Amino acid sequence: MKALVYEGVGKKHWKDKSRPGIEKPTDAIVRITHTTICGTDLHILKGDVPAVEAGRTLGHEGIGIVEETGDSVSSLKPGDQVLISCITSCGHCDYCKQGMYAHCRDGGWILGHRIDGTQAEFVRIPHADNSLYRLPPGLDPAAALMLSDILPTGHEIGALNGEVKLGDTIAIVGAGPIGLAALLTSRFYSPARIIMVDPDENRLAVARQLGATDTVSTDPVDTIMKLTDGEGVDVAMEAVGIPESFDTCQRILRPGGRLANIGVHGRSVEFRIEDLWIKNVTLRTGLVNTNTIPVLMRFLQAGGIEAESLITHRFALGDIEQAYDVFARAASEKAIKMLLTA
Amino acid sequence: MKALVYEGVGKKHWKDKSRPGIEKPTDAIVRITHTTICGTDLHILKGDVPAVEAGRTLGHEGIGIVEETGDSVSSLKPGDQVLISCITSCGHCDYCKQGMYAHCRDGGWILGHRIDGTQAEFVRIPHADNSLYRLPPGLDPAAALMLSDILPTGHEIGALNGEVKLGDTIAIVGAGPIGLAALLTSRFYSPARIIMVDPDENRLAVARQLGATDTVSTDPVDTIMKLTDGEGVDVAMEAVGIPESFDTCQRILRPGGRLANIGVHGRSVEFRIEDLWIKNVTLRTGLVNTNTIPVLMRFLQAGGIEAESLITHRFALGDIEQAYDVFARAASEKAIKMLLTA
Repeated sequence: MKALVYEGVGKKHWKDKSRPGIEKPTDAIVRITHTTICGTDLHILKGDVPAVEAGRTLGHEGIGIVEETGDSVSSLKPGDQVLISCITSCGHCDYCKQGMYAHCRDGGWILGHRIDGTQAEFVRIPHADNSLYRLPPGLDPAAALMLSDILPTGHEIGALNGEVKLGDTIAIVGAGPIGLAALLTSRFYSPARIIMVDPDENRLAVARQLGATDTVSTDPVDTIMKLTDGEGVDVAMEAVGIPESFDTCQRILRPGGRLANIGVHGRSVEFRIEDLWIKNVTLRTGLVNTNTIPVLMRFLQAGGIEAESLITHRFALGDIEQAYDVFARAASEKAIKMLLTA
Repeated sequence: MKALVYEGVGKKHWKDKSRPGIEKPTDAIVRITHTTICGTDLHILKGDVPAVEAGRTLGHEGIGIVEETGDSVSSLKPGDQVLISCITSCGHCDYCKQGMYAHCRDGGWILGHRIDGTQAEFVRIPHADNSLYRLPPGLDPAAALMLSDILPTGHEIGALNGEVKLGDTIAIVGAGPIGLAALLTSRFYSPARIIMVDPDENRLAVARQLGATDTVSTDPVDTIMKLTDGEGVDVAMEAVGIPESFDTCQRILRPGGRLANIGVHGRSVEFRIEDLWIKNVTLRTGLVNTNTIPVLMRFLQAGGIEAESLITHRFALGDIEQAYDVFARAASEKAIKMLLTA
């Protein structure tokens, strides 16, 4: 088969690789029909994720058809169309029993990280019963692909961790794919105002189309404090992963406010606890558990999420190297999510 | 009357001062029978709280007898024995309606801060209906005095903000009065292990008497990680207010852990988000709302809290300057809370 293989910092190739087989009775082999590229894949290529070794197939998002199942897989059979969760989870360990699939003792984020991933013609999925979701008939697989990672991440680590409530004023710092997913999923909880912050006017235009009530491209702290009559916001979401955007979030919180950190950070940040100790704020971090995939799937099936609006570019799976090139220039290409189909 | 008056950095005197009178119809005048000294009062004396002006009567804790009430006070009458909340709250503003009395638009922590406080023979309490609590008959007023600040703070900002649950392993960094109050109130929620951290062995001995299962005086991070088989704790409470103790807390959290910051910080801290972004942790800060005073009072009345065990020294109110001297040497004096009675 063919796979997109990481070959060391800055290097990747779409090349021949041996097709995966069942290794454990809980495995399933899935033939990939749809996959995409995540910002995390670009981080891996920069060498930011040292656990990824040369030779690894990248990718942790996908839709496909079950080809083969291990002897103990009970809920899936060959021919089933499935969504692949970016998080693999056994469903039995202490963390899984608390719904913290991200910290599964025998899983977590492993696809395209510690084991071969989904940017390939075939992928082996461990703990298939708990890590794959059968697609309901009639659901557009391209839209459903957004449920592998981006929509559950926006929902769980943005909207739920930020406790977005009816009438809240929320600010999302970063209007990239994850910030936009946080915007779409925060709307479920009916905030009164959604302030989107990004230096890129193109992304802010997309944010307005998707429901942002205000957009801010410069001086975010001063601008948001003015927009909120000096009160600050109920919820600030960090969707970039750099100290500057974290700092914006902590400076715009009102008393009782919630800071939901979605961004992946490589450096520590200055936490202004000398101002915040008295403000009764909550800060949450997290990797997505994807345990809201079933409810998001029901909502998507009912037409309640414009998931497909996040897909800006379409390629054949065999042209994935070209798709990476476009995604690496996301701002100038006005790219959000790339759809790759086999 | 006499009052303990702040007279600029490092200076305080028990001196004559004019007796307070009703200024607004929602006020009550309370004759103080019991008061105490808080670590915050020492911070004020060091000049750390510049909002406190020379001439201010200090103190925000107290028990007393209602002397006089304004025309709109409806739930209290002269002669009632009352607990004074350290937080004054109107009960009507947007923050009060959310239970965030600490951020009341016309109150919050004002006693002994922005208006004259409780270390005096008489005190004026604004918004008396919402800021005073009638003592049930038979309740020891010395024990009840611990409900003005220290027990609600330990409960709300420690146990509740840390979401202490049945079977949890919790660590409390700092075994001063607030750390011990957090210990006493965390026990309501039946954690399996309570690890108390302090360099002072005397305080750790008190902590063990009050229910700590483990005590740690040196190398807290390494020791706690060993005590927990490398897993870390479910809840870490910061009850000191310095960067070192905050750092201990953030380094011992297991995935899904909660960091409850109780300490008052004067400097920013380094937040290790490069490690914590993926760990699904929650960090909460806060000033006490004291909206759990009624439930704590019921519990105290039923004999469920050893509140009186926090009182180590007793003085007549007129000897308050001497009590401050002892409290300033708390570690060598084995002092936790000073009881001052009129």
